[in-house]
Amino acid sequence: MAQPQQSEGAETGKPPLRVGMVGYAFMGAAHSQGWRTAGRVFDLPLRPELAVICGRDADAVRAAADRHGWAETETDWRALVERDDVDLVDICTPGDSHAEIALAALAAGKHVLCEKPLANTVEEARAMTRAAEEAGERGQLAMVGFNYRRVPATALARRMVAEGRIGTLRHVRVAYLQDWLVDPQFPLTWRLRREQAGSGSLGDLGAHIVDLAQYLAGERLAGVSALTETFVRERPLPTGASSGLAAVDAAGTGQVTVDDAALFTGRFASGALASFEATRYATGRKNALRIELNGERGSLAFDLERLNELSFHDGTEPATHSGFRRILVTEPDHPYLEGWWPPGHGLGYEHTFVHQARDLVHAVAEGRTPEPSFADGLQVQRVLAAVEESAEKNSVYTPIAA
Amino acid sequence: MAQPQQSEGAETGKPPLRVGMVGYAFMGAAHSQGWRTAGRVFDLPLRPELAVICGRDADAVRAAADRHGWAETETDWRALVERDDVDLVDICTPGDSHAEIALAALAAGKHVLCEKPLANTVEEARAMTRAAEEAGERGQLAMVGFNYRRVPATALARRMVAEGRIGTLRHVRVAYLQDWLVDPQFPLTWRLRREQAGSGSLGDLGAHIVDLAQYLAGERLAGVSALTETFVRERPLPTGASSGLAAVDAAGTGQVTVDDAALFTGRFASGALASFEATRYATGRKNALRIELNGERGSLAFDLERLNELSFHDGTEPATHSGFRRILVTEPDHPYLEGWWPPGHGLGYEHTFVHQARDLVHAVAEGRTPEPSFADGLQVQRVLAAVEESAEKNSVYTPIAA
Amino acid sequence: MAQPQQSEGAETGKPPLRVGMVGYAFMGAAHSQGWRTAGRVFDLPLRPELAVICGRDADAVRAAADRHGWAETETDWRALVERDDVDLVDICTPGDSHAEIALAALAAGKHVLCEKPLANTVEEARAMTRAAEEAGERGQLAMVGFNYRRVPATALARRMVAEGRIGTLRHVRVAYLQDWLVDPQFPLTWRLRREQAGSGSLGDLGAHIVDLAQYLAGERLAGVSALTETFVRERPLPTGASSGLAAVDAAGTGQVTVDDAALFTGRFASGALASFEATRYATGRKNALRIELNGERGSLAFDLERLNELSFHDGTEPATHSGFRRILVTEPDHPYLEGWWPPGHGLGYEHTFVHQARDLVHAVAEGRTPEPSFADGLQVQRVLAAVEESAEKNSVYTPIAA
Amino acid sequence: MAQPQQSEGAETGKPPLRVGMVGYAFMGAAHSQGWRTAGRVFDLPLRPELAVICGRDADAVRAAADRHGWAETETDWRALVERDDVDLVDICTPGDSHAEIALAALAAGKHVLCEKPLANTVEEARAMTRAAEEAGERGQLAMVGFNYRRVPATALARRMVAEGRIGTLRHVRVAYLQDWLVDPQFPLTWRLRREQAGSGSLGDLGAHIVDLAQYLAGERLAGVSALTETFVRERPLPTGASSGLAAVDAAGTGQVTVDDAALFTGRFASGALASFEATRYATGRKNALRIELNGERGSLAFDLERLNELSFHDGTEPATHSGFRRILVTEPDHPYLEGWWPPGHGLGYEHTFVHQARDLVHAVAEGRTPEPSFADGLQVQRVLAAVEESAEKNSVYTPIAA
Repeated sequence: MAQPQQSEGAETGKPPLRVGMVGYAFMGAAHSQGWRTAGRVFDLPLRPELAVICGRDADAVRAAADRHGWAETETDWRALVERDDVDLVDICTPGDSHAEIALAALAAGKHVLCEKPLANTVEEARAMTRAAEEAGERGQLAMVGFNYRRVPATALARRMVAEGRIGTLRHVRVAYLQDWLVDPQFPLTWRLRREQAGSGSLGDLGAHIVDLAQYLAGERLAGVSALTETFVRERPLPTGASSGLAAVDAAGTGQVTVDDAALFTGRFASGALASFEATRYATGRKNALRIELNGERGSLAFDLERLNELSFHDGTEPATHSGFRRILVTEPDHPYLEGWWPPGHGLGYEHTFVHQARDLVHAVAEGRTPEPSFADGLQVQRVLAAVEESAEKNSVYTPIAA
Repeated sequence: MAQPQQSEGAETGKPPLRVGMVGYAFMGAAHSQGWRTAGRVFDLPLRPELAVICGRDADAVRAAADRHGWAETETDWRALVERDDVDLVDICTPGDSHAEIALAALAAGKHVLCEKPLANTVEEARAMTRAAEEAGERGQLAMVGFNYRRVPATALARRMVAEGRIGTLRHVRVAYLQDWLVDPQFPLTWRLRREQAGSGSLGDLGAHIVDLAQYLAGERLAGVSALTETFVRERPLPTGASSGLAAVDAAGTGQVTVDDAALFTGRFASGALASFEATRYATGRKNALRIELNGERGSLAFDLERLNELSFHDGTEPATHSGFRRILVTEPDHPYLEGWWPPGHGLGYEHTFVHQARDLVHAVAEGRTPEPSFADGLQVQRVLAAVEESAEKNSVYTPIAA
Repeated sequence: MAQPQQSEGAETGKPPLRVGMVGYAFMGAAHSQGWRTAGRVFDLPLRPELAVICGRDADAVRAAADRHGWAETETDWRALVERDDVDLVDICTPGDSHAEIALAALAAGKHVLCEKPLANTVEEARAMTRAAEEAGERGQLAMVGFNYRRVPATALARRMVAEGRIGTLRHVRVAYLQDWLVDPQFPLTWRLRREQAGSGSLGDLGAHIVDLAQYLAGERLAGVSALTETFVRERPLPTGASSGLAAVDAAGTGQVTVDDAALFTGRFASGALASFEATRYATGRKNALRIELNGERGSLAFDLERLNELSFHDGTEPATHSGFRRILVTEPDHPYLEGWWPPGHGLGYEHTFVHQARDLVHAVAEGRTPEPSFADGLQVQRVLAAVEESAEKNSVYTPIAA
Repeated sequence: MAQPQQSEGAETGKPPLRVGMVGYAFMGAAHSQGWRTAGRVFDLPLRPELAVICGRDADAVRAAADRHGWAETETDWRALVERDDVDLVDICTPGDSHAEIALAALAAGKHVLCEKPLANTVEEARAMTRAAEEAGERGQLAMVGFNYRRVPATALARRMVAEGRIGTLRHVRVAYLQDWLVDPQFPLTWRLRREQAGSGSLGDLGAHIVDLAQYLAGERLAGVSALTETFVRERPLPTGASSGLAAVDAAGTGQVTVDDAALFTGRFASGALASFEATRYATGRKNALRIELNGERGSLAFDLERLNELSFHDGTEPATHSGFRRILVTEPDHPYLEGWWPPGHGLGYEHTFVHQARDLVHAVAEGRTPEPSFADGLQVQRVLAAVEESAEKNSVYTPIAA
């Protein structure tokens, strides 16, 4: 059997944090990179160990283990969560299985990292949060994977908001624009089916921007008014993947059962206004998560397509010399930058997962609840539910349940 | 008496178009520049003549006439609209007097150019439109001054949409962001009082973006869902301007009676989704009218702060070499560019008024209804009314009255 | 006879400044716009009067007069400079006639505005400067038209450098990139013939950037090392324009006798390093005059294709929050902005000529030597001569003659 | 003893490529990341093994081994190059030791990867190249680490140039701007001492841009004309690092013996013109390696501070709709992207080292000479030598020795 890939040399004497990961697709690859790299870049109190990876297809999961550096494999996640040599379960599956796996892992005494969205329904998320809080009393930690909090530029933005650099908040405008559904011939993958994905752009992209907006604002949304739309309602089935689909017609197409786009406006608790847009139909926008915050003393703006930059306008300066400045977030005292490269040598998307691993390892070592917690994930879920409710009720302003 | 300033030499034999302008503040200066310059840059069928300018204060209007090149002055707009030597009345006053002046001018047989918004209420706008249509049968023209249709980049965008370059429309996102109210000590000017301005950012900025969005889309909004807010409800009175305000308190402050910001989402007739934001609290954004259209075949984006540029993504190209391109809209075959400078030599804000004058002169000479017509202005007013209605009714989706 | 177009009402009692302009092509149109508009926007001590315009073809110049608002015409510039009713001669012809006209105008007691480059040779420029200095003692003013000093953003940059905001200068990098010669079939216009244009991109574009770099730096170049190149040495003759060309071959083509591109590096008197590039072969760059200054305390950057913006990096700020900021140069206290529009409402290329007219009118009224003087123009010519000398001498570093 | 960190699971049966690395500072960390990650992302024919790392200080190199995942350590590079269990020697030391180590490693039968610049002198580079060519006949490979060829955007640019998309080349302008020496109190590190670094910004930054410019152009420079400067000639010694410096004065300062900035122009073999600037005094520019190529049919532009983007202007399109487009170089068919994330999910600086490792592993497996070869590195060294010679000889144009 292969040696487990370790993110820190065995001889260092650091205690290990043995990770078991469920799922090995896009998120699995990204999380693997995070676990494998965190201890190479940062001084960590524990040594993350890529112990076990789990997937239903034995050959495929073995190949994934080799590719990504996991020591062992399982084909049943129930077996994985019960293993004694696993300290933390990292859930990288589609949203419909999050609740079941997380509840089992918490029950088995493991720490849990769960990909976003926390769940497909508020009910599931509520149960998970309750379980996490109880487990927390036993010293177990649970975190949800809103990785975009861990871009250095967004973390810097949060720090600047907390320092009062933009003052009383007036506006937050956020959009998460992608374009991979523009072509009506793009196939009906699991992300377009409600039973697996829960919702469409709303749960996938909207969850990210709701979390990020509230995190940066440092406050929660009070209510929302929403429009959603499914532009293309029927799509060809993916090759060799028809089984399991609810409705397959003769032409080999199936129904899209989630939203293609979601627009909503809202009010923060403080009275600030917010606008949100999540879509997969913004032709030419590949991964344009954009957020701007306007406060009485300044403004901040960020675009994920240029993730090493943060725009800042200092409204307290004389207008003569003021303007939005482009901070290249690569300085040694910027968040997460202590371990990386000299100024101007940018990071990429996957680094958010390295930072997520770093933060979670610290939380485990120090025994403190990590952020975002399952409770944070539940609250995002409540916002998404209010969005869906408003959209169903003719866009009427819908308060977020507390 | 001074010779009237002419936009084309008298000896050319071209018939004149004698303009009488009411109002001489910001818009008056901008329109003057337009009338004065149009015939210097473009080959016009008529010779615009800056005949009479009107304002209540005789000295001030005389000074304005000298400054801006108007031959004569009036202190009563009723006198101006009755003058035989005026062919066209150009209304540059606040919105509360648009209807009265326009109706009188149309009744007096004049062509009319009316600044936006067409009126402060749908009722006024309806009456004006009816009068304009009747006058139209007598050969009189009426146009509303949505000048942002006449930025070369927006006109090019319209042409490209009409050519099918972006295909079926999916999304329109528009924001008009300014920041001049961020300071709570900014005084209570007429623009902050409902009785004169009709509404706040909605009528001032929102009217522009509703018109521009519909113009570029080539279709109309079907309904909207809206939030509005007044962040700062009490402001100091402007120096020497307390009289006439409804409510002046002991501290020398007064109530802000209009919206500070308006957010709304909507659906176009075709099913495309739209989001709108108009605010005067976007710290650091000075005149950021931004619009993006996403269609099945491409996308277009524009920012008024960089008005010589149009961003275009051609979605029909292979992804390998595609991306948003920055078209510098200064080529000879771009709209309005035939009269200006070589490629790369940009235009500014005021040129929209030169282009507006050009287009209106052509319409008058050719006897065809100019765009945007009063009917277009009325329809914008209906959208604004639906926004206000939705905002009052808990953001419920509100159809636009036909 | 038509009334002269006035930039300020006759009844104001302001004394006139009667302008006679020679040439009416691109620069003639731009200067006309400047003279016509300056008094409409700024409070001027004198009233510019578009008195006489001169060109060799009587019909064409009459048409130009009508188009641009000039009262009278001449077909012989010698007649124009002798007219008693002309106070200032504005020279808008190609460079080969600058010296002769300027010398005659100065001899006739006129103020002179001469388009850049001041002349085609150092000898001519020296004679012009000497004549201007002698005329200066008689109260006559002479200015050279480096209009890019009068973009608000460049004027602000100059002010900031003078205030010490960038500290000791280390680097100046400048490029003026156009692309109108990329096509080898573009015809052989006067700008490509040494006998009329003096040089190619060097005199046309290089003169602008040498002046602007020295103006912004606040110091002069000490020496240069240069490469020049003519990429396409033979071009088709312009239609109907073969006469007067030195060498026309059977195929209807002629020799390009000027440089297509000029690259040079140099040292400023202070020891700062500079690099320059002037070309008409930068495909896709339409009018990209870009300049960046790096000093010990900060940096400034400007691009003429975005002329309402100035980039500023304040090196004295903590690195954590610093970055290049984009100053939108449209604030009331920015240079030249007192007369224009509210913040964010940008200006265009031609406004530089309005500002040039404003500054020259003030200089005339106050009797002080305007900047840039003919001596400044001569010094630029000396730099260009050193560039040509270095290019001929294998790029050897060539000091600028004092 | 620790298990060697492997970039691919042992059980896959792939033969290993056992790497021995000399040096473990900035470049050592970056190369480690490359070797560790390449096989996790790409399908490699060999399995890179982080076998031995070498440094003079036993404790420090042991800590580095733990941090970066190397199995064993050496304190004498001579021992490392002689080890039977090392297949490839990766040289990450300062330039003054490159030649000695590389020659020994080649003599010992190893493949070699040598950081840039290949050497500190042409003589050393020539000897290394000769040795590499002889070793090549024995099947050993040698590559120099110009990692910026392996940014997906630059690799795409190269592909597009090779496809003829920009046509006949006219201009290449390149700058590599940093600002870490602006502060005169920054200490005198090894990079500022000729005996170790060979040269200053020239060898550090200039080497990168000379290689990149020639790589993208697909041709070599024929000659150069140069200016160099040392702005701050005396600097404080680094704490605890005075020993070994040639000249330490009483005040604890020492002489800077390398250039602070180097500017040079040049001609490519085809006649295209080039300009280069390398400096550490460009306040606010952190890692701004910028290159633009203008050809008769199009242009390409790149900025390392936005490394996921490539600007492309297609000059064959109608001017009406053309402009520089921003290609987000994150599509599956872009160079190196097959192994990474979905479109729009950007990469960072260190990925260039992953790609370098990937390419070198393929070259070793396939037995073909990798690019850039030592001969390429020698040629860059010759350009740098010509730059220094020209700078010493009054900037005279200096041909590049063949």
